[in-house]
Amino acid sequence: MAIITLTTDFGYKDHFVAAIKGNILKEVPDATIVDISHAISPLDTRECAYILKNSYSHFPEGSIHIIGMDSEASIENGHIVVQVEGHYFIGANNGIISLITKELNLDQVVQITLPNVQVNSFPVIEVFVRVACHLARGGKLGVVSKPFSGLKEIKELEPRVTNDGKTILGNVIYIDNYGNVVTNITKTLFEAYRNGRPFELIARRQKIKAIHKSYNSFINYELPENQRNGPSDLLAIFNSSGYIEIAIYKSDLKSVGGASTLLGLTNDAMITINFL
Amino acid sequence: MAIITLTTDFGYKDHFVAAIKGNILKEVPDATIVDISHAISPLDTRECAYILKNSYSHFPEGSIHIIGMDSEASIENGHIVVQVEGHYFIGANNGIISLITKELNLDQVVQITLPNVQVNSFPVIEVFVRVACHLARGGKLGVVSKPFSGLKEIKELEPRVTNDGKTILGNVIYIDNYGNVVTNITKTLFEAYRNGRPFELIARRQKIKAIHKSYNSFINYELPENQRNGPSDLLAIFNSSGYIEIAIYKSDLKSVGGASTLLGLTNDAMITINFL
Amino acid sequence: MAIITLTTDFGYKDHFVAAIKGNILKEVPDATIVDISHAISPLDTRECAYILKNSYSHFPEGSIHIIGMDSEASIENGHIVVQVEGHYFIGANNGIISLITKELNLDQVVQITLPNVQVNSFPVIEVFVRVACHLARGGKLGVVSKPFSGLKEIKELEPRVTNDGKTILGNVIYIDNYGNVVTNITKTLFEAYRNGRPFELIARRQKIKAIHKSYNSFINYELPENQRNGPSDLLAIFNSSGYIEIAIYKSDLKSVGGASTLLGLTNDAMITINFL
Repeated sequence: MAIITLTTDFGYKDHFVAAIKGNILKEVPDATIVDISHAISPLDTRECAYILKNSYSHFPEGSIHIIGMDSEASIENGHIVVQVEGHYFIGANNGIISLITKELNLDQVVQITLPNVQVNSFPVIEVFVRVACHLARGGKLGVVSKPFSGLKEIKELEPRVTNDGKTILGNVIYIDNYGNVVTNITKTLFEAYRNGRPFELIARRQKIKAIHKSYNSFINYELPENQRNGPSDLLAIFNSSGYIEIAIYKSDLKSVGGASTLLGLTNDAMITINFL
Repeated sequence: MAIITLTTDFGYKDHFVAAIKGNILKEVPDATIVDISHAISPLDTRECAYILKNSYSHFPEGSIHIIGMDSEASIENGHIVVQVEGHYFIGANNGIISLITKELNLDQVVQITLPNVQVNSFPVIEVFVRVACHLARGGKLGVVSKPFSGLKEIKELEPRVTNDGKTILGNVIYIDNYGNVVTNITKTLFEAYRNGRPFELIARRQKIKAIHKSYNSFINYELPENQRNGPSDLLAIFNSSGYIEIAIYKSDLKSVGGASTLLGLTNDAMITINFL
Repeated sequence: MAIITLTTDFGYKDHFVAAIKGNILKEVPDATIVDISHAISPLDTRECAYILKNSYSHFPEGSIHIIGMDSEASIENGHIVVQVEGHYFIGANNGIISLITKELNLDQVVQITLPNVQVNSFPVIEVFVRVACHLARGGKLGVVSKPFSGLKEIKELEPRVTNDGKTILGNVIYIDNYGNVVTNITKTLFEAYRNGRPFELIARRQKIKAIHKSYNSFINYELPENQRNGPSDLLAIFNSSGYIEIAIYKSDLKSVGGASTLLGLTNDAMITINFL
């Protein structure tokens, strides 16, 4: 029972996602199809990569991940499959897959060479679903592809360590459903330079002096209730994906606002950590 | 083939829901996973309870319902499982489960005691999924929990009967996708006090003198078409969940507006029924 | 393993869709349930028909399609099942099914006659799910229905050919997730009248002189990059459903805008093609 996941910018209203699922079920009736997200901002390759990067490893090995975004092949960007850590990523060579897998040792990178395929304006169905179903049925990747070495890389903002290791300069890379602000500074990087020093994390005019391991560890339950931290207070945590995240405790983006709106932080905004 | 449902405030864009599903499929490859809703307003416990309360009994007995909202354990709110009417609810002891089950005879209330679990900032995966999969595989609840008696209760607005049984004072508890306004006055309560009397339902400045059993029973097809009720007319019905609901016939919240916007009714707004 | 698809205007927040799925799983535990869309604009029959029309044929024969919109029966609109091309459509006789199937040879049109059914305000569950599950278990349609000949037809805008075959007058019928504007002019109609002539497609003040077979065929990769078409340029394509579509290359409706917002095109807007 193969797992095929879908990550697209098709949204939840149009017929596109259903058409993909119908075609998968035509070929592999017992496939387990899982939606990763269809709400990727149109053509936002970094956002697509962020969401799929933080999803895929939660799935069993052997899972097949279709990326339905910017999926038309061109002379410059062909259709590819990357196999890594037992997972398959199928998409156009537009940089998304290289962003997802850039820190990993790739097992295989191939270009899709389906025989007798007429590709019109829906390559996700015409190409990706066919390859995914071939793999889901246990088919060999080599039958539908040829070796390829031109994996397209696109740049993304990387944190920089400066000031003799006293400063980390990072950026906002994602705003989540709560308005929580995810930075590109990982717990691993932070700990590598911290050396037990106190620090301040600066996000615009706000300074934060602690990074919690969960939201609730921000609350000191030994204090009387009226002296504790609580809703609308600012905090930083190491989130479940390993990044430093800035949040408003129990925020609601649609009513009172979240860290993104209350602090005025958007994608790419600079985040500074100074070790003292 | 166990059924595991998910009710969260994670939204449809982020990777959180996919990560949950991937972890379930890792442990129970043939689980049937059903999304109840991921659009709960962040941390709105009453909304979460309303939606799950009106969903769960439609599922077969044995279904396992994961509540992914306000899910971190604290000294005050542990992780619990409640078994009732053959259904399992897994969540934090934050009041949601008690709201859902308050009129029911609970079979079991237990606190989760998973051995060897490192809980960081994603307890839905680290705890709830593990317990759900244990149950889905036919495991005993006792193996992953201990008896518990501190089910947290939170208050919600209850209808009041006053004026010697001549008046019911209720409140708006939910606004649905059409802008229909759901009150906390049940058909059962209404009928218990009506005694065949005429009545008026008052919602701000509007008075309604009939409650229909369906939308179309609002239309008298024996009248000529131009004399019938029709689109944009106000009505009340007993909805499919057993509550009195105020609606605009064939409304569209996003274009012409629904009962909520046209009458200016928001959550908690007072609804009065006077028996005449 | 029967496939049951759902197309509704219930949205993604309320409990309605989950309640439907729960009831299906109660009766047919191994049913494959696929969401076509739950974001249909409330009661927009043409939009519902457009989305399901462009989805259903992607599914295997034998698939059962439940239409959960305007689903209450009335004296005028009963509950029906239409069998066509091996697919079953279940809904109210409100015109949606006739819009979907109007160019097809219908195999069967029947009115649902379920014995012992109490229909209140949720006919999708009380009627449609029961019929769908009966069919999914291999039951005969005749057992739950009787022959019917009053399939309700509703008008939709049709393209007109005028000016001695020199002009096609069409209309916008759908705006997709990207703001791309879908017209009711099919490739088939266009090619039937073109006769190799040059043409101009007029959408408000914009003229387009080519219709591409895909988005990327709009880009001439032989030109230097700074002379190519690119993001924010206007184009027309034959879309994957066979209609002429007007698009902004790599647009984002939520940020820079799409063809719909940038050209000021809404549903029903006139599109003219003049052959020169």
